[in-house]
Amino acid sequence: MFIKKLEQAQRNNDSLLCVGLDPQPSKITDLNVSLDDWLIAIVDATAPHVCAFKPQIAYFAAIQAESELTSIIRYIHSRYPNIPVILDAKRGDIGSTAEQYAKEAFIRYQADAVTVNPYMGGDTIQPYSKYTDKGVVVLCKTSNEGSGELQNLTLSNGNKLYEHVAKQASQSWNENHNLLLVVGATYPEELAGIRQIVGDMPLLIPGIGAQGGDVQTTLESGLRTDGLGLIISSSRNIIYAGQHHHNFATAAGQAAESLKNTINNYRRYEQ
Amino acid sequence: MFIKKLEQAQRNNDSLLCVGLDPQPSKITDLNVSLDDWLIAIVDATAPHVCAFKPQIAYFAAIQAESELTSIIRYIHSRYPNIPVILDAKRGDIGSTAEQYAKEAFIRYQADAVTVNPYMGGDTIQPYSKYTDKGVVVLCKTSNEGSGELQNLTLSNGNKLYEHVAKQASQSWNENHNLLLVVGATYPEELAGIRQIVGDMPLLIPGIGAQGGDVQTTLESGLRTDGLGLIISSSRNIIYAGQHHHNFATAAGQAAESLKNTINNYRRYEQ
Repeated sequence: MFIKKLEQAQRNNDSLLCVGLDPQPSKITDLNVSLDDWLIAIVDATAPHVCAFKPQIAYFAAIQAESELTSIIRYIHSRYPNIPVILDAKRGDIGSTAEQYAKEAFIRYQADAVTVNPYMGGDTIQPYSKYTDKGVVVLCKTSNEGSGELQNLTLSNGNKLYEHVAKQASQSWNENHNLLLVVGATYPEELAGIRQIVGDMPLLIPGIGAQGGDVQTTLESGLRTDGLGLIISSSRNIIYAGQHHHNFATAAGQAAESLKNTINNYRRYEQ
Repeated sequence: MFIKKLEQAQRNNDSLLCVGLDPQPSKITDLNVSLDDWLIAIVDATAPHVCAFKPQIAYFAAIQAESELTSIIRYIHSRYPNIPVILDAKRGDIGSTAEQYAKEAFIRYQADAVTVNPYMGGDTIQPYSKYTDKGVVVLCKTSNEGSGELQNLTLSNGNKLYEHVAKQASQSWNENHNLLLVVGATYPEELAGIRQIVGDMPLLIPGIGAQGGDVQTTLESGLRTDGLGLIISSSRNIIYAGQHHHNFATAAGQAAESLKNTINNYRRYEQ
């Protein structure tokens, strides 16, 4: 089951870090490697320091790289079978169509988890969550500047919309105990409130680094008392840490190790 | 520009009908045709009766049919250049990633419009809407049973969430005048309210037929005084109207013509 696999990886690698795989051709072409080789080199260099990999499907779809996405997920499963893969796809559609998206994520790409959008309601999340061995990561409070425009609207009962989503996702939507939430590191107050609502549910945290989220504040706001419960995702700052062919993988590995250590320093302090 | 192209097609073909292309292998294999040939046959048979085609990307993604999706959109553009293609993808992500999804829809697949999810806020819609010649169809009140779970939540100002989305989409998000909304035929009261909020904005209406939406009520609730303003989408009832190889395309054409005529009968009455 996904959450078990995730937490085992967090313990094995002593890491809450998730590396996002967002291949941008403009940043890779100068390196004189194929996309397949670049992905493998990044994965090999960072694998000792992560609890998960998170390929962002948009970056593959924009450049017709479905076969590269398939290959790198297969590679991770084969070479690092204990490290789960979260497919960042943010899908959302009515039941019969959501069934197809679930097939895309779990059958075609063999992802261990997928991100989904809750706007259409709980019946549109069920086609994913019925894969009980997979994880379903529901958008709650996202990291972008405009996320509050809908998510922070106050409801007539005094709750914010994102709080309502957190409640539903931790209660009625979560009959198979395989839901998680996305909460941006850029909103630590909301993160603290969500942690109160959802109990032990693991939270996927984008927005560290490039988007301005702070590691210490994130851990203070969202870490569980057992030192787990957060998946801290970073993409650009790690995978593009090296600018040149001779050092791109080494630099990515060093950046991952460094961020893992920074997280662990604050993590130990918090526990 | 998309809305102009759409309304020209509605006038040319005297039709508000949009045919959804949702290829399900289990329903096609018995027909003894390739997916490419099935798609072309459905498009050719229904083209005289439609104002738009709406391929649903999940059905292609689940079966690795990116090349068939590319081919059928190219075929529609070449053979029926006046009929727009709406890529039903319901994408939603932060800006830098939304840029990639916009490339997927508009550059890779050459769609004339794409459906998007508003949960993450207006800044996540802008990467699509900045393609000023393209249409961006924002989810507002969706056709599924559970759509009200979030969309019908009452805000502290008394509005429903979907009404707030309709307001934003028709005002501050719509600086390039290329937004449309998705409103399910299954919720005619909400449709009537949304028409009041958005003025002349065209609305994409799923949920007729298989999902239980009624044509007459839909037109009464949402038609503009000029007899346009609605794109009434139907998929399964049309594309799978024929069960056997010798009649599948003819049956689809007849089903499209029949639904077009039903819509037009009520449309004339309403005007």
